[in-house]
Amino acid sequence: MRNAFHDDLDQLSNQLVGLAELAGSALAVATRALIDGDVELAATVIAGDARLDALRADLETHAVDLLARQAPVASDLRAVVTALRMASDLERMGDLARHVAKVARRRHPRTAVPPELVPTMTAMGQVAAQMVAKTAAVIATKDLAQAAELDHDDDAMDALHRQLYAALLAPSAQYPTDVAVDLALIGRYYERYGDHAVSVARRVVYLVTGRYATTPSA
Amino acid sequence: MRNAFHDDLDQLSNQLVGLAELAGSALAVATRALIDGDVELAATVIAGDARLDALRADLETHAVDLLARQAPVASDLRAVVTALRMASDLERMGDLARHVAKVARRRHPRTAVPPELVPTMTAMGQVAAQMVAKTAAVIATKDLAQAAELDHDDDAMDALHRQLYAALLAPSAQYPTDVAVDLALIGRYYERYGDHAVSVARRVVYLVTGRYATTPSA
Repeated sequence: MRNAFHDDLDQLSNQLVGLAELAGSALAVATRALIDGDVELAATVIAGDARLDALRADLETHAVDLLARQAPVASDLRAVVTALRMASDLERMGDLARHVAKVARRRHPRTAVPPELVPTMTAMGQVAAQMVAKTAAVIATKDLAQAAELDHDDDAMDALHRQLYAALLAPSAQYPTDVAVDLALIGRYYERYGDHAVSVARRVVYLVTGRYATTPSA
Repeated sequence: MRNAFHDDLDQLSNQLVGLAELAGSALAVATRALIDGDVELAATVIAGDARLDALRADLETHAVDLLARQAPVASDLRAVVTALRMASDLERMGDLARHVAKVARRRHPRTAVPPELVPTMTAMGQVAAQMVAKTAAVIATKDLAQAAELDHDDDAMDALHRQLYAALLAPSAQYPTDVAVDLALIGRYYERYGDHAVSVARRVVYLVTGRYATTPSA
């Protein structure tokens, strides 16, 4: 049965998709800023995060208003509460993109990523882009098969993260400490970004099936 | 006017205090494990995090049940929604304590913190302990003066974090890359722990005053 409440839920879902799209473009631009050492692109991401925060606040206002007006119960209530948690994950993904951009800006006019590590970082950016695009699609379509793919994508992200650390720590590498520290943090930002994407997808799966897998928290 | 709903809110508040206490003892033990290189203490923290996750799930069940049964509006509704977000911050603080413990375990039988950096790390642990204790008190008492102190404590944490990075990056330091990477990540875990404590306190201030300061997200 469709009713006004379900229209409201659809609107919440659209707001979540909007957040996911912003979080996605933020990290895509931040990755480019990082690899190219482009301080202007980095500044765009840093400034743009306020928009994501504002949209998340709008979503929260909308959700709380919905709870107050409609007093939903059972699965309808759970859908609204879950939307709040998904918004939290997506806002955090935007924060992580901002952190990547800040490293890019801090290292300017140098680039933070040594040439031999550019392929790994590029791949991390690509996997992240794929993950956030799937997350947006899963929110919109509730497609469980696509939600399940995110676990595999996250394994790919974790493998790249380990590869980055192995390269940093290779006895032959001898990276200056500031480079190693930057890359350790950047690696963690991408890995956490992937974790939050998985977390959003799992919340959708929970809403659809009533079953919840453990959230990644590495 | 006191009623059954406000008893329920008190119970939510008690549950939040319980989460804060667990997050506090987790980081206290993790700090000791880290500095002493005590792998058994580290294992305690890693295993203990499941309890915090379970208590947070209980809190969420309780909060959602409260929304369903009582359909609160206005400030009562906001109090329940905010409790959910505070629980999220506190669970994350427990995760960060677990991350610190994992570094301690990974480096065993070595210790991750070189002797000359032990004072800084000890101080970060002390500031964190102070912050989480105040956070628990602020949740219980809604004391705005104590909530305001947390901003200053967080400044102290950020200063220690910068001091740690300056020591890592000092040209004379020449730390092995694995040591630098560990400490960069550990420094970030403590800093984020402090941010989450501030975030919880600010949510309490918001509930009491209706005004909300920006959440730290560095």
